[in-house]
Amino acid sequence: MPHLKTILVTGGAGYIGSHTVVSLQEAGYDVIALDNFANSVNGAEDESIALKRVEKITGKPVTFYKCDLLNIPELEEIFNKHKIDAVIHFAAMKAVGESMQLPLLYYKNNIIGMINLVEVMEKHDIYQLVFSSSCTVYGEPKKLPITENEQTGNVTNVYGRTKFFIEEMLKDLSRANSKWNIIALRYFNPVGCHSSGIIGEDPTKAFTNLMPYISQVAMGKKDTLTIFGNDYETPDGTGIRDYIHVMDLATGHVAALKKLVSVHLGIQFYNLGTGKGISVLELIKAFERVNNVKVPYMIEARREGDISSMYADASFAEKELSWKAEKTVDEMCADFWRWQTLNPNGYKTPYTNGHCP
Amino acid sequence: MPHLKTILVTGGAGYIGSHTVVSLQEAGYDVIALDNFANSVNGAEDESIALKRVEKITGKPVTFYKCDLLNIPELEEIFNKHKIDAVIHFAAMKAVGESMQLPLLYYKNNIIGMINLVEVMEKHDIYQLVFSSSCTVYGEPKKLPITENEQTGNVTNVYGRTKFFIEEMLKDLSRANSKWNIIALRYFNPVGCHSSGIIGEDPTKAFTNLMPYISQVAMGKKDTLTIFGNDYETPDGTGIRDYIHVMDLATGHVAALKKLVSVHLGIQFYNLGTGKGISVLELIKAFERVNNVKVPYMIEARREGDISSMYADASFAEKELSWKAEKTVDEMCADFWRWQTLNPNGYKTPYTNGHCP
Repeated sequence: MPHLKTILVTGGAGYIGSHTVVSLQEAGYDVIALDNFANSVNGAEDESIALKRVEKITGKPVTFYKCDLLNIPELEEIFNKHKIDAVIHFAAMKAVGESMQLPLLYYKNNIIGMINLVEVMEKHDIYQLVFSSSCTVYGEPKKLPITENEQTGNVTNVYGRTKFFIEEMLKDLSRANSKWNIIALRYFNPVGCHSSGIIGEDPTKAFTNLMPYISQVAMGKKDTLTIFGNDYETPDGTGIRDYIHVMDLATGHVAALKKLVSVHLGIQFYNLGTGKGISVLELIKAFERVNNVKVPYMIEARREGDISSMYADASFAEKELSWKAEKTVDEMCADFWRWQTLNPNGYKTPYTNGHCP
Repeated sequence: MPHLKTILVTGGAGYIGSHTVVSLQEAGYDVIALDNFANSVNGAEDESIALKRVEKITGKPVTFYKCDLLNIPELEEIFNKHKIDAVIHFAAMKAVGESMQLPLLYYKNNIIGMINLVEVMEKHDIYQLVFSSSCTVYGEPKKLPITENEQTGNVTNVYGRTKFFIEEMLKDLSRANSKWNIIALRYFNPVGCHSSGIIGEDPTKAFTNLMPYISQVAMGKKDTLTIFGNDYETPDGTGIRDYIHVMDLATGHVAALKKLVSVHLGIQFYNLGTGKGISVLELIKAFERVNNVKVPYMIEARREGDISSMYADASFAEKELSWKAEKTVDEMCADFWRWQTLNPNGYKTPYTNGHCP
C-alpha cells in the first residue's frame, strides 16, 4: 500500500474543502489545493482568502493554484510540478435550484471536471481518490435511516444526477482497472464551521442552504426565513435532515485517506452523517436558543423535488473508517454564529485574528 | 415551427450515419457531415470513403468535415460556416466489450462529445436534435415487447450507461429550456446495408456484432462463428434480438425530422425496431439459406452481461412518426452479403460501380 503524504484537494477554497484542509494539515498531510473560485472568494493575485486563513489556524502553508478542471493543461502542470499521492475531489457546482435552471453548466463542470481529473490521475499513475458524493444520490428514501446498500439513481435534481453519474463512472473505472482505490463519501447536510470563527461558509451565489439563511436573518441582513412546507409527515410538519458539523465531515476525509492506505477497496461508498435527523424548526429553535437571537420565519408551500425526511445510517463508516460525527447541534449553531458575527461580510471582512471587528 | 433544410450529421461516416445520409439526401435535405474516423475509414486528404460512395448512390454532394466533438473550436467553425437547422447526433464509441475495458474513453467521447455539441448548438440558437440512443438503456427487460415507458437505467454495460446518461441530460436540458426539441431514437439491432452494395458496415476494430461476424465466416475470412450460450430460456436456447435493417433505421431519422417540424415535443423517445425477435440461430440459418453459404458455428458459454431476449414494441413510432420497419430478415441477409462480396476488404476495396471485382 502506498504511503500518502501529499494530497491534492480540488475545490480546496470552498466551504467543505477549506475545512478539510485544516484537518488534513493537522493530521500531518501536505496539501496542494486548487480552485476556480466558482463558489469561493479570491483575494489579491488570485490567492484564496479562505486558505490564507486556514494557514492562520494550522500554522502550515497551503500550496494553492487557481485552476479550473476544464483546463487540462493547467491541471497537468500541477501534477507535473508535485508528487501527488492522493486526490480529494470536492470541486463541483452544488446549488440544487440552479442546477435545474442551468443543467448544462452542471453537467459540464461536474462531469467533465471529473473525467479530466481521473484521466490526468491515470496518466500520472495516481489511483487514490476520495470523491465528494451526496445523500441526494438516494433520491426519495424507501426506508430510514438509509444505508449505503439502498438503491441509488432515482435522483430528483440535476446536481444529484451529476453525483450519481460520477459514482457510476467511478464504479466502471475501478472495475476496468484494479489499480483504482476510491472512496466516495455521501455527505448528508454539512453545517457549522471551524470553532475559531476564522473560516466558515460564505456562499457567493444566491443560496438556499438553511444555516447561512438562518444566520443572515438572525443578524438582520434578511427579514424573514422562509420554510418550504410544514405539512410533511414529520412530528412538527417540517422536513427532517441529518445535519453534520463540517469539521466532523473534514475528519471523515482524513479517516478515508487512512482507509485507502490500509486496504485495497476498488471502490467503496460511505455515508457521512450523524445518524440523527432533526427538523427545520428544531434547527431554528436550537440556533435561537444557543446564540440568544431571534429568527423570524414564515411558512410557504413545499418546493417541488424536496424530500420529507432523510437521515443516515452512519454505522458502516463507524465500523470501517473508525470515524463518527462527534459534534452536537448546539456546536453547529454556536460555531456558525461565531463565524458570522466575526465576519459579517464573510471573507470580505478584514481578518481580525478572532476578535470582533 | 422551423423549416429544416440543412442537417448536420455527426458520425456521418459511420455505419448508421452514412446510411442515414442516403435517406436524408433522397428526402431532399442538405447534409453537412462530420466524423473523427474513430469507427470509420478515411480516404486520401481526410475525405470519408463511405460518404464519397453515398454521393455515387444519391448523385448529391455531401459536405464533409473531419472533426472531433472534443475539439470545440473545430466544431464551432462548422456552425459558423453553415446555417444548420437541425442536428442528428450519431458520433459515439459503440463497442460494448471495449466499453467495459476502457470506460474512460467511452465516457470522455460520448458524454463530453454530447455536452460540447449541445453547448455549441445553444450558442448558435439551434435546438432541433435527433439523438442516437439504444435499447441497451432498458437493461434486462421485465416484460416483452418493450415499450418506451419501461424503466431505463439498470444498464449492464458502460456503452449503454453513456446512452442512458445522455438521455437523462437531454431530459434536463429540455426541462430547463423549452426551446429544445429533441427526439431520442432507441435503436434495436441494426444489420444489413444499402441494397446497392456500395456502402455497408466496415468495422475498424475487433468486433462482436453478429452479422459482420457471420458474413466473415461465410466468406472464409474467419473459421467459425462463436455463439455465446445456447441455454437461454428461448425456443432454440440462443439469444433473441430485434434485428432491424439499417435502411429502415435511416428512414426512421427522416421521420423524426418531420416530426420535429410538425410539433414541439420538448423531448420524446421512440423505439426503432421491427417488433419481432429472432434468435441468433435463426439469423444464421436465414443467412445461409438466402445467400447459399455455410456458416459453421460453435457454442460457448454465455457472456456476462448478455441478455436473453430483447425486442421492441414498435407501435409508438408507427403511430407518432408514421414510420415502420419494412424490410425482411431475408433482405437484411441478402443486402449484407452483396456488400461483403462486392467489397471483400470493406471500404479498402476499390470502388467498382456495383460490379464484383
